[in-house]
Amino acid sequence: MSAFTLEATDGGARAGTLRTAHGDAQTPIFMPVGTQGSIKGLTPDELLGSGARIVLANAYHLYLRPGADVIERAGGLHAFMSWPGAILTDSGGFQVFSLATLGSVDDEGYHFASHLDGTRHTFTPESVVQLQERLGSDIAMVLDDVAPAGVDEARAREAADRTLRWAARAKRARTRADQLTFAIVQGSTYESLRGENALALAALDFPGYAIGGLWVGEAKSRSLEMVEIAGAALPAGKPRYVMGVGTPEDLLACIGRGVDMFDCVYPTRCARHALALTATGRLNLRNARFTTDFGPLDPACACPTCTRFSRAYLAHCFRANEALAPRLVSLHNIWMLEQLSAAARAAILEGRFLSWRTGVLESLGAKPTEG
Amino acid sequence: MSAFTLEATDGGARAGTLRTAHGDAQTPIFMPVGTQGSIKGLTPDELLGSGARIVLANAYHLYLRPGADVIERAGGLHAFMSWPGAILTDSGGFQVFSLATLGSVDDEGYHFASHLDGTRHTFTPESVVQLQERLGSDIAMVLDDVAPAGVDEARAREAADRTLRWAARAKRARTRADQLTFAIVQGSTYESLRGENALALAALDFPGYAIGGLWVGEAKSRSLEMVEIAGAALPAGKPRYVMGVGTPEDLLACIGRGVDMFDCVYPTRCARHALALTATGRLNLRNARFTTDFGPLDPACACPTCTRFSRAYLAHCFRANEALAPRLVSLHNIWMLEQLSAAARAAILEGRFLSWRTGVLESLGAKPTEG
Repeated sequence: MSAFTLEATDGGARAGTLRTAHGDAQTPIFMPVGTQGSIKGLTPDELLGSGARIVLANAYHLYLRPGADVIERAGGLHAFMSWPGAILTDSGGFQVFSLATLGSVDDEGYHFASHLDGTRHTFTPESVVQLQERLGSDIAMVLDDVAPAGVDEARAREAADRTLRWAARAKRARTRADQLTFAIVQGSTYESLRGENALALAALDFPGYAIGGLWVGEAKSRSLEMVEIAGAALPAGKPRYVMGVGTPEDLLACIGRGVDMFDCVYPTRCARHALALTATGRLNLRNARFTTDFGPLDPACACPTCTRFSRAYLAHCFRANEALAPRLVSLHNIWMLEQLSAAARAAILEGRFLSWRTGVLESLGAKPTEG
Repeated sequence: MSAFTLEATDGGARAGTLRTAHGDAQTPIFMPVGTQGSIKGLTPDELLGSGARIVLANAYHLYLRPGADVIERAGGLHAFMSWPGAILTDSGGFQVFSLATLGSVDDEGYHFASHLDGTRHTFTPESVVQLQERLGSDIAMVLDDVAPAGVDEARAREAADRTLRWAARAKRARTRADQLTFAIVQGSTYESLRGENALALAALDFPGYAIGGLWVGEAKSRSLEMVEIAGAALPAGKPRYVMGVGTPEDLLACIGRGVDMFDCVYPTRCARHALALTATGRLNLRNARFTTDFGPLDPACACPTCTRFSRAYLAHCFRANEALAPRLVSLHNIWMLEQLSAAARAAILEGRFLSWRTGVLESLGAKPTEG
């Protein structure tokens, strides 16, 4: 049985259910990021309250610290984090690429030095499957050769081809029936490469597909074009996940193009910079006007932050460097993206996604034509 | 009617109830410190869960930022912080003394420059009463002339005499019937000064008394001696509060000498340094052995941290610089001191305080004779 059921479409937008070993997730869904096994100051209970059902962790980070052995002895990542919902582990390809001192990448895999202590390691498609099986995540990403927007076509082709070969090897290396393995479509911003890579990966029949290497600085229109091209080549019955998205506007744009799953550090990173996401746009709580604004961050929000604390109090806590401020705004920002995803789903199920989105974007202050 | 009822004594130890405009507090009680109107990353719900019924805030800090006007417009400090329990505001004498650039202290009051922006201000006994009435705290501390352990006797006498005169002025300046004003006994470490100051303040008939200027580096035996001398001179029917205590051992020593109330940044400061307070002593979670210790911080503790998370997970979060770690350990540490205070109360009510304390100190690894 497929892990994903597509329940409704509305134009390009989709509503579905993804079944994992730790519960079902109704899509579209936003997945908060806990790179190192902790979601920026928040507890599992708080995340569940927001509507989050899948959280991200990163295999590269957890491999280096605390190590797969510690997590295995803890009874797996769910027990270690005390998170009862589903976990998606990123393979770490992007982190090796962006954080580690990369020795080389060849057909075997990545040869790199840890960003923590300089020790040397190799990640292969097989070792990364084994690593994620030891971590015990519900969704494992294959190791990909990352070629983001900006590389030349030869390098993009090499990376896409290698990602495809690695995906096949990862599939053969799998041993756990309770873990879904997602492939990652590469191809940088080259239309034909994206399309070919997506088609070839689709033929390998993975339970889900990510679209990687985007939202790294290229024009938004290019990112969305690549999402459309990859989406057209991917099977309708499998979930689609765009990595590293993002803002409310980008979520809505991608949902309209058939994306089901998202992850991004955006809501928690914003919170650390005193930025609150609301239905009427982003608020900078360091702005002087908020010091005497006694209303909630978002009058329409039912989160524990908005029902208890004022903008003035949060503004004060940010100015006073109190740890409560990023905590409370992180929680609100994650609520905002989860509730936005849930509202998008409701609109899709009722066949009114486009008109709903137009209203939301107008409220956010964005140009509706951007969607 | 007195705000305090002494319900039982057991040797020197006391159990009572303090009635405030925001609920009753059963003593002995530990009061978590939220200097700037926030208790180090914790929410009001979490604090209530720990058993905390009174929290501290600091009039000096709140006067400078966000200002009494903002808090008054928010509906008072309880509404601003969203804290339903009682609040004790320290007058700020100690903070002017230790943080601000002090211009001078004379009979009028303190003339100082803000530690935030260098602006010049004056605190008088009357202005500090008015400030705390605007903040709306349940317990207000009088302005004291701080002469901690270490000053010479002439300065200690000047400070004690001035603190007495200021206390009388503060009492006359009061206008709110729903705010309890506590005087502060000074006298540094001079026995006769402490005793005289306490007796003279007792004659002014305040609803409660603090013992100030101690636990600032002097020998522990001297601090405890001063607590005994002040206690002997203070009326039995009024609550006694030792400022800046502290550790489990110091709490137990003071409770045995008749102290009812405590405040200290110790539990939250420890947590920021990865130190957990347990029934069997203090754990440094940066110690390598905790990285594979999958038990709770304290097996006997029912707090949300101990019932959900392991030492290994907390140790990992500290090493990974995750904000969840100090949050969870702060919560545990405050629970520990609240539960210790509640257990002391139960032992006093049952007339077995000394034997109970001996057992607790042995478990903590402290020398029982220290008590």
